[in-house]
Amino acid sequence: MFALKQRILADGKVLPGGVVKVDSFLNHQLDPSLIVDIGREFAGLFREEGITRILTLEASGIPVAFMAGLELGVPVVFAKKVRAKTQDAEVYWAVVHSFTKGIEYDITVSKAFLEKSDRILIIDDFLALGEAARGLVSIIEQAGASLAGIGIVIEKVFQGGGAKLRAQGIRVESLAMIENITEDGHIVFSEV
Amino acid sequence: MFALKQRILADGKVLPGGVVKVDSFLNHQLDPSLIVDIGREFAGLFREEGITRILTLEASGIPVAFMAGLELGVPVVFAKKVRAKTQDAEVYWAVVHSFTKGIEYDITVSKAFLEKSDRILIIDDFLALGEAARGLVSIIEQAGASLAGIGIVIEKVFQGGGAKLRAQGIRVESLAMIENITEDGHIVFSEV
Repeated sequence: MFALKQRILADGKVLPGGVVKVDSFLNHQLDPSLIVDIGREFAGLFREEGITRILTLEASGIPVAFMAGLELGVPVVFAKKVRAKTQDAEVYWAVVHSFTKGIEYDITVSKAFLEKSDRILIIDDFLALGEAARGLVSIIEQAGASLAGIGIVIEKVFQGGGAKLRAQGIRVESLAMIENITEDGHIVFSEV
Repeated sequence: MFALKQRILADGKVLPGGVVKVDSFLNHQLDPSLIVDIGREFAGLFREEGITRILTLEASGIPVAFMAGLELGVPVVFAKKVRAKTQDAEVYWAVVHSFTKGIEYDITVSKAFLEKSDRILIIDDFLALGEAARGLVSIIEQAGASLAGIGIVIEKVFQGGGAKLRAQGIRVESLAMIENITEDGHIVFSEV
């Protein structure tokens, strides 16, 4: 998605350790018109998939997932991050390791909001090692629902999470794929 | 807002302690079309206020704030909840006591995303005791920006937070005002 890549180059910041900060438009401050375009792009990519529900993870996945849901006319569910493992028979849950933050957290989704008959699109802002996506996939499996694919705003290809998911046969569509970051901090997108 | 009140009556659940659960359409699962209407309602109420930025709090304030920002054509910033007080000169922060959850947490906003010249609209999903709103107001004061008002989806009038904020001269607009909850768990809206 050209406008997104341009925006990442213009306003993104590269921090040590391959961290790409896009908090001026995507995950702390939101640029509504860009997010509308992102939502439409996801909707266009997955429109033929018979999606019945979108699943994302709080907090920064919410705006883009919401817009995709609005475009596709389906409800959006966001998984909640919980620090303490609370035994609750009413939720599906999965453990996510965040290597960036060096922590482990649980994500939960109320059983009321995923059905066996659902065909689900996962949407998230970032895909790096793929830990959060794997947690969401696990929750969909627990619900016995069907996974249509994963839509990602920014994939950090060099961290390998996308390759692993695709190797499992999962359709992963990323709107901006960062192939690598040079030693002097420049972002190189994949040639697609 | 009639459609919202109808939805609360139809799909909301009243739990012990005056908790109103609306997670089937507002804060776990999202109904995109209802949230579009909510965003438009906020935009209509505050359109003449010269809003330059919207401030909300992750996670459940994000969808409604995003839609209001889209309608008003302004960026949306969401404050982040942090558990551990990390000294960071780059952020404004405030402490929020959550009586419902029995915890205290910090909220932070990057200094880069609030300017002294900003006229800010706070948007949130719930207003009960008003603790989260007070934290957001404090952050706006720290930034030296101007507060245009507060837009709330559901105000629990009986918990008094809204009255306190209005007594300070703050314009608070709530789309559904729950006057009280009867002993047998029925929701009574304020007559407005």
